[in-house]
Amino acid sequence: MTGDDKPRPGLSAERVGVFTDAIFAIAITLLALEIPRPEEPEQLADLGHFLSEHAGAFAGFALAFLMLWFNWRAHHTLFDQLARVSQAVLAVHIPLLLFSAFLPYATGLFALEELPTDARSIAVAMFGGTEAVLMLCQGLLYTLTLRQGLYAVGASTTRMSTAAAINWGIGVLWAVSAMLAFPLGDGVTLLWLATPLLALAILYGMRLRRGRESRRASLG
Amino acid sequence: MTGDDKPRPGLSAERVGVFTDAIFAIAITLLALEIPRPEEPEQLADLGHFLSEHAGAFAGFALAFLMLWFNWRAHHTLFDQLARVSQAVLAVHIPLLLFSAFLPYATGLFALEELPTDARSIAVAMFGGTEAVLMLCQGLLYTLTLRQGLYAVGASTTRMSTAAAINWGIGVLWAVSAMLAFPLGDGVTLLWLATPLLALAILYGMRLRRGRESRRASLG
Amino acid sequence: MTGDDKPRPGLSAERVGVFTDAIFAIAITLLALEIPRPEEPEQLADLGHFLSEHAGAFAGFALAFLMLWFNWRAHHTLFDQLARVSQAVLAVHIPLLLFSAFLPYATGLFALEELPTDARSIAVAMFGGTEAVLMLCQGLLYTLTLRQGLYAVGASTTRMSTAAAINWGIGVLWAVSAMLAFPLGDGVTLLWLATPLLALAILYGMRLRRGRESRRASLG
Amino acid sequence: MTGDDKPRPGLSAERVGVFTDAIFAIAITLLALEIPRPEEPEQLADLGHFLSEHAGAFAGFALAFLMLWFNWRAHHTLFDQLARVSQAVLAVHIPLLLFSAFLPYATGLFALEELPTDARSIAVAMFGGTEAVLMLCQGLLYTLTLRQGLYAVGASTTRMSTAAAINWGIGVLWAVSAMLAFPLGDGVTLLWLATPLLALAILYGMRLRRGRESRRASLG
Repeated sequence: MTGDDKPRPGLSAERVGVFTDAIFAIAITLLALEIPRPEEPEQLADLGHFLSEHAGAFAGFALAFLMLWFNWRAHHTLFDQLARVSQAVLAVHIPLLLFSAFLPYATGLFALEELPTDARSIAVAMFGGTEAVLMLCQGLLYTLTLRQGLYAVGASTTRMSTAAAINWGIGVLWAVSAMLAFPLGDGVTLLWLATPLLALAILYGMRLRRGRESRRASLG
Repeated sequence: MTGDDKPRPGLSAERVGVFTDAIFAIAITLLALEIPRPEEPEQLADLGHFLSEHAGAFAGFALAFLMLWFNWRAHHTLFDQLARVSQAVLAVHIPLLLFSAFLPYATGLFALEELPTDARSIAVAMFGGTEAVLMLCQGLLYTLTLRQGLYAVGASTTRMSTAAAINWGIGVLWAVSAMLAFPLGDGVTLLWLATPLLALAILYGMRLRRGRESRRASLG
Repeated sequence: MTGDDKPRPGLSAERVGVFTDAIFAIAITLLALEIPRPEEPEQLADLGHFLSEHAGAFAGFALAFLMLWFNWRAHHTLFDQLARVSQAVLAVHIPLLLFSAFLPYATGLFALEELPTDARSIAVAMFGGTEAVLMLCQGLLYTLTLRQGLYAVGASTTRMSTAAAINWGIGVLWAVSAMLAFPLGDGVTLLWLATPLLALAILYGMRLRRGRESRRASLG
Repeated sequence: MTGDDKPRPGLSAERVGVFTDAIFAIAITLLALEIPRPEEPEQLADLGHFLSEHAGAFAGFALAFLMLWFNWRAHHTLFDQLARVSQAVLAVHIPLLLFSAFLPYATGLFALEELPTDARSIAVAMFGGTEAVLMLCQGLLYTLTLRQGLYAVGASTTRMSTAAAINWGIGVLWAVSAMLAFPLGDGVTLLWLATPLLALAILYGMRLRRGRESRRASLG
């Protein structure tokens, strides 16, 4: 590797970003194909009832959309700061893109209504686990960028370590929720509501620590 | 924010445009998957009858295509003039892209034939409402660009405020039509035909007002 | 319009090319979803028989793929030579992209086996007509580029007028074949085999004429 | 052709890369649509059993994903080193993209459970054969680039000939496995496991030979 020179063939950040964008965009749009459609005559006759009965599927679509959106935002923000990608960064894209492509399937299972308790736990665990992998991959991408010094001149390592912490934190929350789906079933979806609070808590925690450290440094 | 400097990471307009393009392109292409296909032997035997019976689905496909096309045009034109995006501009992309991805589902409902009156009203309202959100989001993007001064040097604020007014106007027309679908049912689709007239009316209204203002200014 | 200056917002050729590419790429990939899949136990039991029975669907997929590929090639070659796009060029993209998105549906109808004669004629006419629109739109794009002088400095107008003639010619062949599908049914697919011959004939015809004209000019 | 000048219209490498990326990305994301979904009440009731019964479909999805990923990597790495594309390079994209678009169908057949032996052999051969075409096309792209001197200044021909050998080798392995599917059935999937070993063996073989050649050259 040669510092800030032109990246080695196959390691230019731009085309990796475009490919990831394309897969995210397709996965996001395929999510809506998973919402159940009225087909039987009685479903068509009482469309309002059909739609309200599948409110969970609409909520699952919106939730999966939001998670993919924030994943895309994290990726976009990171790649705007990259000088080049490493083989390790590329390797992390394998689970990231595999589970992005898998998300519509997991969302489709999550959208199924009237499952017995056991089946419901499996569906919730698969959905939560898929989201967990996506967030953990983003965390890993930020951490690798910092450790391997892949960022461009002028990139803020402070911001990047905050983003790493937030993505790792949310990933762990969803991984735990996926495991808790077996005893708790649908109840773990309440844990997911804590996602924005956790993000804010990590953000303020990091600022607080940094404030203390800089005060200590100025005192020293 | 730092005026005309390089945008902050994650706020570069280009990748937001590419991502939006991808979702619009996929949604546009998935629309055609919603047109009913002949499957039963009697549908295959009399294909001409089957196709003419589903003329509404073909019209719905063409209409949804046109609305997404003009949405894309509005977005393309705006992003050609942006220096950078703001957090607010990004936030508007959440409903914009969510409802773009949702449009094929709404078009599929709209394409259903032989629905009872109540169900028909719901399907028309969902389709009209989805289109309304897309147009209102475009109007909001133009307004935010003007208010937050996100445009590049040399961009025409006159044109941008005209575009804002047209998108807001069409969005309100479709939002009203979605609400009127409940008393009026399929009848509101006649309101949609007024869309190009409304666009022209706003265009000429804005020019007229500007003409008067510039005359007043030259007299003052 | 200002000659070779920066294009007006919304008239930059690049993003139009990217959007068109995306729709072509998605339509090409969705074509394969139209190939019938074995589902019934007897179809699964004798998979070889099922696949050979649907050889027409595989041929239709390959044919639609090739036509979209050459459409993309024509578009790519044209847009590499454009300085800017005009409102007319943009307007031609409406039928071009609408019928590209519609092609998988038409290919699906074309792939249906064991249709009665009437239904077969409709399916062949829809497939041929859709292809005709795509080729005629490419011809029109080349003609508009030449007439409106939208090409970049250094573009070869000779090549472009040859490309225009070839695309117009193939478009007319397919439009005629679509109309002949009603008396002739599947027989018109033989006309389609003439497509490469027609392209070559137009290419050599244009060269011959140009040769004669340049001799006449040098004699004059 | 004019060496390092601007490529002829339609022969610019960049848009070919973007189009290929788009088709790879869409094919990768459509793969997940091929995983069977629970629909019958007894499948929904015992979701765990349903999912474990279709473990083969999940494995097929992951395998097809990995093969497309490495195909994309090979293409990305090659195109980062291209100065321009030739007509031959473009022609190789026809089978490359046709079979990429076809891969989800082949993966869907491969994912079918409980097929009789004959049908299973066909499904395995189609999947293996599709993968073989993709790898052979990549090998051919590298070989053409080397033979026709299409690479940019500074590209490493050593690396490119290694990549050519690896892609050809893997392509031949999969082509052989597709033919062996008829006598061996599912057994050939064991051959596929040899793919990474074969890649490593070719890599070290090439290095060894180059080492010997350079020693001989320094002795001569």
